[in-house]
Amino acid sequence: MFPESDSKDLFLEAFGDLRKSVDAGFDPADIDALYFGNFTNDFFVEQSHWGAILSDALGLVPAPATRTEGACASSGLAFREACFAIASGFYDVVLVGGVEDMSKRSTAEVSEGLALAAIPYELDAGFNFPGVFGAIASAYFDTYGATREHLINVTIKSHENASRNPLAQLSKSVRQMMESKARRAAERGQQLPEWSDEREFLRDETANPVVASPLHLFDCCPISDGAACLLLVADEIAGRFTEHPLHVAGIGQGSGRGLQAAEELTSFEATRAAAEEAYQMAGLGPGDIDFAEVHDCFSIAELIHIEDLGFFEAGHGHLATADGLTGRQGSMPINTSGGLKCKGHPVGATGAAQLVEVWQQLRQQAGDRQLPGNDLCIGLAHNLGGTGGTSSVTILRRGE
Amino acid sequence: MFPESDSKDLFLEAFGDLRKSVDAGFDPADIDALYFGNFTNDFFVEQSHWGAILSDALGLVPAPATRTEGACASSGLAFREACFAIASGFYDVVLVGGVEDMSKRSTAEVSEGLALAAIPYELDAGFNFPGVFGAIASAYFDTYGATREHLINVTIKSHENASRNPLAQLSKSVRQMMESKARRAAERGQQLPEWSDEREFLRDETANPVVASPLHLFDCCPISDGAACLLLVADEIAGRFTEHPLHVAGIGQGSGRGLQAAEELTSFEATRAAAEEAYQMAGLGPGDIDFAEVHDCFSIAELIHIEDLGFFEAGHGHLATADGLTGRQGSMPINTSGGLKCKGHPVGATGAAQLVEVWQQLRQQAGDRQLPGNDLCIGLAHNLGGTGGTSSVTILRRGE
Repeated sequence: MFPESDSKDLFLEAFGDLRKSVDAGFDPADIDALYFGNFTNDFFVEQSHWGAILSDALGLVPAPATRTEGACASSGLAFREACFAIASGFYDVVLVGGVEDMSKRSTAEVSEGLALAAIPYELDAGFNFPGVFGAIASAYFDTYGATREHLINVTIKSHENASRNPLAQLSKSVRQMMESKARRAAERGQQLPEWSDEREFLRDETANPVVASPLHLFDCCPISDGAACLLLVADEIAGRFTEHPLHVAGIGQGSGRGLQAAEELTSFEATRAAAEEAYQMAGLGPGDIDFAEVHDCFSIAELIHIEDLGFFEAGHGHLATADGLTGRQGSMPINTSGGLKCKGHPVGATGAAQLVEVWQQLRQQAGDRQLPGNDLCIGLAHNLGGTGGTSSVTILRRGE
Repeated sequence: MFPESDSKDLFLEAFGDLRKSVDAGFDPADIDALYFGNFTNDFFVEQSHWGAILSDALGLVPAPATRTEGACASSGLAFREACFAIASGFYDVVLVGGVEDMSKRSTAEVSEGLALAAIPYELDAGFNFPGVFGAIASAYFDTYGATREHLINVTIKSHENASRNPLAQLSKSVRQMMESKARRAAERGQQLPEWSDEREFLRDETANPVVASPLHLFDCCPISDGAACLLLVADEIAGRFTEHPLHVAGIGQGSGRGLQAAEELTSFEATRAAAEEAYQMAGLGPGDIDFAEVHDCFSIAELIHIEDLGFFEAGHGHLATADGLTGRQGSMPINTSGGLKCKGHPVGATGAAQLVEVWQQLRQQAGDRQLPGNDLCIGLAHNLGGTGGTSSVTILRRGE
């Protein structure tokens, strides 16, 4: 949380990090256009038209700046537009990112504001986001025989990954959180249950209260401030910026109807369409992907996404997770950044932040959370907007 | 004003008109993607993520839907993204449009809401939109020796054009408005000044009160509801839809700093950059354009735009208008639709609506407002966001 920073400050900081991370450096004057995602600034900070503000702050004027909005998938969409702008031959160097500035509002206001991303029928039925995903979790449990224990597996993994990410908003493992809670209680002379392990901690409703049954606090991502950006350049000139470029192998985007019209609650048609488009463009299938960042706004969402993306069969996501296949050492590491759950979910920046994680992993620059092995080649990022209304899927591939 | 319609209703109506106007017809299933502009729905109707809602309502799911936002230039930006998506080879058939739904709010709320498009410094200095454009008008008067009489020329022309447009929000000429005001007064037995002509009517502060000096009521566009859309298809398949396609000859977009940083108040750097980009792509210059729709949110804006777009030299826009050059019979007809001033300014739909007007004129389908002569070949649309923070310029050309 950055209560003293506005969206301009946040984006400038991310831009500073980007400039440092581009091997050969670059100058704002090299940038032909800016695309960025943002969802809530109109109503949370009461300022729209950030294209004008950001292009001025970054020193890009009179280069064009375009905001895309697809709720929580806003910067996944921005990345895709940047790809089109370059693939069309119109531009060579495009800055793409996202920003969100949410901490100036109360949790109640944020909850109400984010509900603007839902489909009206859902709101009319009394659903907010935890409510929708709670219903989805119930349907998943019912259909596939999963239980809360399977959600707990996701939570423990996310926190474990985030404990290796210095930029994570929640950077402690569940065990560390349990221990510090016990320590603080002891210091105050409070009586607390003695949790034998982190699972028992998460099962305890005083430590992990219910939010929207069967989802508890640790199943939900936090409210976040943040920004992320990347530099996308035409293939022919990538060598000017680095000897080790990544390639955009596939991009896909889809839309979906609200829950009231969905054929099933345990799958998102927007994700399936986006994945199909991206795989087809890349000439790849799910089995070719080495690791992925997926849109785990809630723990149940991760289980569904890894099925919709084809990494595991429908109804097998919770089993694969229980078997450790989605962990750092597994065959399909998911959300090595800590995911939305722990890295944080600055809504309009999330799609870009996922791509930054994929970028760092593929370039072996992920520090303590670097996946083992030197043969990482293909990573995927999956961004979801609303209650499945919009999804984008991007596949990045390491150059030869 | 359509108080009973929401954005979905408005867009569906525009889509219905589009389907009727495409010679060979088409089916929603033919559409690969939707791009649309919208500015105020987040805070005026408290619903975001219209991509999901519109794609469902139009029957496009799971095809992707992307919202672009650049304040009042939102759908000019959408059109450009649609061009990139097709030019990249990714899509063949893209629906592009815009929608805005403003009449459910009071004038005061709309005024406050639209100010979110301005640059923060301007708001801090107490400027709302009429205030900013009032200051711009004062600067223009001061620099070029223009007077309110020159603004009155713009207003009279806009209303004259709109009187030929059955879809205009304000569809009466100034003379008609003057006469009906006099008639109503006489019916009520009120004493009103006897205006000798429409100029005297507009000079009368009781009939045309000051809004932000030197701008009066008739210098300002109204608050509007509306939607507009077009079908953009790859060159190779245009023949499937019509024997008389139009071509996108040039697209340009630019950004600009706020007034606090502008080098001069009488020109918009975003427009100049957008125009340069569009002319360069088209291999054309201002002298090649047959007619244009420009972003006349205020009468003074039209005078500045026709200079920034290169149709007239800096400081000559008001003289050209006084000479009738921008009228229907002039050498460079401007805003044959009636412009934002009279056709209406449904903010996020305006850029698309301008392109619909250019489309209809170039296809000789503009009804009573069809420009004379059969040699109309090239039309331009100019969209401006905020106080010059964003601009887009699009040049359409009739096929051979």
